[in-house]
Parts: sequence; structure tokens; C-alpha cells
Amino acid sequence: MHQSQLFTKTRREDPSDETSKNAKLLIRGGFVHKEMAGVYDYLPLGLRVFNKIVGIIREEMNAIGGQEVVLSTLQDPELWKKSGRWSDEAVDNWFKTKLKNDAELGLGFTHEEPLTNLARSHIVSYKDLPRYVYQFQTKFRNELRAKSGIMRTREFVMKDMYSFSRSEEEFRQFYEECAVAYMNIFKRVGLGGITYRTFASGGSFSKFSDEFQTVSEAGEDHIYIDDKKRIAVNKEVYKDEVLKDLGIKKNDLREAKAIEVGNIFPLGTRFSEALGLTYKDENGKQMPVIMGSYGIGPGRLMGTVVEILSDEKGIIWPESIAPYKIHLLSLGTEKKVISAADGLYKTLTKAGVEVLYDDRDLRAGEKFADADLLGIPYRAVVSTKTIAEDKIELTERKTGHTSKVTAKELLSL
Amino acid sequence: MHQSQLFTKTRREDPSDETSKNAKLLIRGGFVHKEMAGVYDYLPLGLRVFNKIVGIIREEMNAIGGQEVVLSTLQDPELWKKSGRWSDEAVDNWFKTKLKNDAELGLGFTHEEPLTNLARSHIVSYKDLPRYVYQFQTKFRNELRAKSGIMRTREFVMKDMYSFSRSEEEFRQFYEECAVAYMNIFKRVGLGGITYRTFASGGSFSKFSDEFQTVSEAGEDHIYIDDKKRIAVNKEVYKDEVLKDLGIKKNDLREAKAIEVGNIFPLGTRFSEALGLTYKDENGKQMPVIMGSYGIGPGRLMGTVVEILSDEKGIIWPESIAPYKIHLLSLGTEKKVISAADGLYKTLTKAGVEVLYDDRDLRAGEKFADADLLGIPYRAVVSTKTIAEDKIELTERKTGHTSKVTAKELLSL
Repeated sequence: MHQSQLFTKTRREDPSDETSKNAKLLIRGGFVHKEMAGVYDYLPLGLRVFNKIVGIIREEMNAIGGQEVVLSTLQDPELWKKSGRWSDEAVDNWFKTKLKNDAELGLGFTHEEPLTNLARSHIVSYKDLPRYVYQFQTKFRNELRAKSGIMRTREFVMKDMYSFSRSEEEFRQFYEECAVAYMNIFKRVGLGGITYRTFASGGSFSKFSDEFQTVSEAGEDHIYIDDKKRIAVNKEVYKDEVLKDLGIKKNDLREAKAIEVGNIFPLGTRFSEALGLTYKDENGKQMPVIMGSYGIGPGRLMGTVVEILSDEKGIIWPESIAPYKIHLLSLGTEKKVISAADGLYKTLTKAGVEVLYDDRDLRAGEKFADADLLGIPYRAVVSTKTIAEDKIELTERKTGHTSKVTAKELLSL
Repeated sequence: MHQSQLFTKTRREDPSDETSKNAKLLIRGGFVHKEMAGVYDYLPLGLRVFNKIVGIIREEMNAIGGQEVVLSTLQDPELWKKSGRWSDEAVDNWFKTKLKNDAELGLGFTHEEPLTNLARSHIVSYKDLPRYVYQFQTKFRNELRAKSGIMRTREFVMKDMYSFSRSEEEFRQFYEECAVAYMNIFKRVGLGGITYRTFASGGSFSKFSDEFQTVSEAGEDHIYIDDKKRIAVNKEVYKDEVLKDLGIKKNDLREAKAIEVGNIFPLGTRFSEALGLTYKDENGKQMPVIMGSYGIGPGRLMGTVVEILSDEKGIIWPESIAPYKIHLLSLGTEKKVISAADGLYKTLTKAGVEVLYDDRDLRAGEKFADADLLGIPYRAVVSTKTIAEDKIELTERKTGHTSKVTAKELLSL
């Protein structure tokens, strides 16, 4: 991509109406645009990052047998009345709307009800189980406040998976497989070492659920980490009897603020019983299906990465989710520089390397500042000086380490 | 994919609450699920088709310089008041909702207003133009009636592109490039020969707009086709003075019902003036940006393909958008059949061929009926008979033509 043609521009100043680091940097870099509090658009560079995160999650979900669907936003009240989750008293963050005939509809904040209902058409016998179904779908949550940038918004894409199993044992096996897949995802997006599987309240569904918490001062959660076991306990269940139950010693724990980047929930028969999802077992007996739900918000993950992998100059994207791998900069307007940079851009893109090419007529300082802000892993500079040496000046964003390389070396990075 | 593990099942009977052919076949095949009138979920097989259509559209939009974004569903009334499109009198298909503080929001039915507004942050000078920005985004339209299956729904993904140009000339050049890209898309999804660029009303924006109409009895539009010129005129502008204007003779026209599968609109300065999107020209003068909009609904395209490319037995997907390329069927429960079919499935998938493998313990007749209904281009049968001949029985869904082929021939299809 020629940066001179890019739809978005960077800006030097922080937006005045944002307090979170992720929103400030993402807006300055032109990755996102704020429509209103808690509502963001994804612009070309931001969408590339977002889609790479989605791609990683999809791979991991497919690897454990997930089948992808997309359910609707508009929700029929009848299904939600069956589970007792339609009223605003039961669920305090519904967005609701109306059809022309005045019939009320909801905007889905999650999808247990419609998916359980539709599974009734496809799951009949024990032979139809287990099944794992997931989607990347836009959720709507009528949050009172929204001040954490793209980490907590009123409208966001969620990867929500639902498992349908015959027995508690079959369910637990998948639940643990999914926990492993989740840790793979956090590792692959660059948050591996600081993300902990965390015991949390199971709400009305079960004794415990599992959260995945990434340590960050920007987090809204408080967790207690056991560094030896590499697990944590959410403050909400940090009680003597719970710790005893889990075999965790208080003295082994340290407190930290953290961002909830994923969660997995045992649902038991809560929804299958309410909506009538049963299967015929080997003996011909109708049994309720055992369910679980598994959520990750790719936008929240992206925001978390920015909170953690950034410095005073800008973002430091991990290569796995960077909008481009190489940021190629031409310095100066001399013909031979432009022609060398043009040639290098062609060579790299032809070889399938993702390159953002800053071909704009700007001073070196401005280009360097933009490169630091955008946070593409490798900055490659072409100037009269580098041409004289028949080399390219390569700087790694993460370490700041600079070296002189050949075009061939750049290709095999 | 092993069909025994597929989340969805087919059904023999038409759903009783659908009148359109596309909804009947897509629901029977388990491609989609109806949540309520005009609201559908995409299930694994349906989502594969949908995503292939999206992929084709994306390629064509990128090829003409499109840059992809995703804007929000939730809409701030302030922007729409500026263009005069907020009130329900001005726009009769808004879905509206409310924040906790009772402030009203809209659910976007299109995105001229927010995109024009956000472009103000990025388009400043003549050097920032032209720009072409598109998205695949869920639109909400509060339709009074919805009875055309997935072709006209209350919630649907639209590919909407918006062009920003410096002059009428620059705008027209892109408009024509986009018209060519649109015809490429219709051709690639299998609707080439029967889709016509069609003069239609420009509404409040301009004299004419261009629709792309696919001839079908299921269509809601009436068009008049000039077969020699391969263009058409929508009934709404079928008037003597218009025909004269366009140089079309009434006698050359034939009437047909058609489905509007795409449209492109000159917007002039309608939105740039209302929302204050100007650029500084070479002489330092502030000028309003000339805009256009370009829409295609991948779901409507999918429904149109089903209306047209189907027979009494089911769907006939073109290979370009089929959920899988090959439908592999094992007949019987003999060990050597299962082992041969398993082996062939492995060989094909390893080579990157997309295969749905019907490994279920069902009678041949049931498997054949499902294969016809699902409409995958090639059906490959493995049975005791084919093993004896060391061949595979290959049947093309489109023609019904059957032949005996080797595994190697199957691989190079």
C-alpha cells in the first residue's frame, strides 16, 4: 500500500475526549474512528489488525472442531422469555427496537437462546453430539459508561462459541481443550506470558467459570496470581473457603490489575431445559443437552495489545497481527531514491511481503514519527546514503535495533 | 468435512412459512435458519457460500483501488439531522433504539452520513483525492413486508462503497470502472449472461442511477431490455423522453421481471455539502467533494443464484461459490468401501480440494437426494462396484453427466 494513497492520516495530538491509552494511540494512528462514546469504526489499518486477530482465533476454533455460523442481531422476545432473560430487570444492558407493527425486538448481547433453539432442528439423537458452533458476530450492550476505548464498547464483534455435549464428562473434556486453544490465541497475539487462566464466579450457571486475565494497569478487574501454578483467582471469589477448595495458599498470591480478554462458562442444562433442546440417548431416553459458552472479543484483544505493547512514541505491534510487516520509507525527493524505493516496494510485494510504503513528500522526521506511531515491526529506509552503500537501513520497532541489510536479507526476514 | 459431524441436517419438507424458492431450498439444505420474517442466520454450509461471494466482491473492489473499513451500526442522530435523513418522515425504514440516558440512536440503513463526516478528518487537500472506501457491514431496514427469503431482509450485510472525487470527470471515470467491476462480480458468481446494467431513477441525487438487474420470475422489478446493446431501462424511467435521451428505441425492448442485484449512484455534493466535506484545490480554494455510492448485497446475490441455478431436486451451485467442490459419498457399510472412501477423502483434502464427505450410515437413495439438494458441483461415489473397477463414479450436478474416473483425474478436476 502506498501511504500517499491511504485513506487515513495520522495526527500529532491526542483526541481530547479519550482517557484510555488504546483509544488515544489508535485514533492518532488512524486505526479507528470514534462515532460516539463506546462506538468505534475500524479504518483500513485497524481493520487489517482486527482481521488478523480474527484469523488466529478462527484457526484455533477450527482446530478443536468448531463450525462457523453467523446468527442475527435482531432477537425475537419469545425465545428470551423462555429463558427468563427478556425483561430489562433480568438483563440491564439490552438495546431494544421495534418493528413497524410496534412489536418489540432486541439486539443480541449474546446468543445462547437463538442458538439453542435452532440446534433443536439439527440435534436429535446421541449420534448428533457433541457439536461445537461459533461465530464472529456483532453484539450490542447498552453500557452505562464506556471509557476504556475499544476494550469496552456498546457495539463489538464477539467470537462466541457454544458447545453441545451428551455428558458432564464429554463437556469437561472439550472445556479443557478450549482453555488450551484460548491460551494459544493469547500467546499468538503477543500476550502469552502475562495472561492467566483465572477462577471466577460461575454466576447463576455453575460454581466457577474461567476467565483469561491479562495483567495491565488499564484493567478493570483485580486478580490474585499464583506465579508457580500460573493460575489466578478473581477478587470476586477471593475467599478462604474458595482458596481451600482450589488448593491455593494465600501466601503464594500476588494482587494485580488485569483485563479480561476471554472467558469460558459451563452452562449445564440452563438453556437446553428452558428451550427444550434434548437428545435421544442409546436407550431411547430423552436427555437435556449439556452446554458451555466460550467468548473472546477480538476488538478487546486489539485494545489490550495496544495498552501493553506500546511506548511514548506509539504502538509496537507483534508481527502476527501487525497491519503490515515492513514499513518502507523513502527519504528525500531525489529521482534515484524514489526509483530505488519503488523498485524495492515492487520486489517485496511481489514476493508476498506485506509492505506499507511511505512514498509521501515529507521530511524524514515526520516519516519517522509516523512509523513509530503506527508500530509496524520493521522500518526499512531508502535514502541517498543507503543507496551509496547498496544497502537498506532496517530498524526493529520493538528493540530500536538498527542494521544495514541487502534487499535479499529484507526478503528473508 | 465429515457430513456425519456437520452441525446441520437436511429436511425433506418445505418449511410451511416460506413462499420463495430460495428460502425453501436454503432452509431444506440447512444453509440458513429463519429467526423471524426477514431475519436469517447463516449456518456452516450457507456461511461458506456467503464468504465466497464476499471474497469475490472484495477482490474486485480492491482491484479498482477500494480500501476496506467497517463502520458502526449505532448511529448518532446529529449527523443525520444535518443531511435531513433522521426523521421517520424522511426515511420510512429506520430501526431506532435508545441509550440508558434515553438518548435516541439509529441502526444504520446506509452509511453516507458517518463516512462523509469521518472523511473530514482525512481528506483536506486535492492531494488526498480521489479515495474509494468500502465495507461489508450489516444494515438494518425496517421493511413492512419481507417475503422474498434472503433476497429482501430486515438485517443484511451490504458491500457499500463510497467514492470521493475532485471533479465530475474524475467521478465519472471511477463510476464506469466500478460498473465494469460489478459486471465481473455477477459473471464470477454465475449470473453473467442474464444480468443487465439498467437505467433507473437517480432519486433526489441525480438524473439517473444505474441498477444491475438479473432476469428472474422471482424479481420485484420490471425492466425493458435492449438485447443488442445489452442494457435495460427500469419501468420507473420507461418514458418516451427518457428513451429518446438514452438513444433507445421502444421497438428494440422486451419486458422482463428482474432482481436488483446491485446499484451505483451519483451523489454529487449532496452529502459533502450537508456535512461539510471540502478540499483545498490547487489554487487554495475550498471545494465540495464529489461523491458516489456503490452497493451489492452478498446475501441477495446468494438468494438470486438459488432462484436461478436450481431444479426440482435442489440447488446447482457454480463452482466459484459452492460450499465445497466435491461431495464424496460412500455407499454401504463394507469395510473396504469405508477404507477406500476415507483414503480418497484424505488424499483430496491434503491436496487442498474442498470436500464434503458423506460418511453417514444411510441408504444410497437418501445420500443421492441430499447431494442433489445441497448442489455441490461434483458428486464422487465410492461403492463395492466402483472399487471393483478401481474407479470413482463422478457426476456433475449441473449436467447430470456421469463418468468413471481415477483418483488422479478427480484431483485434477
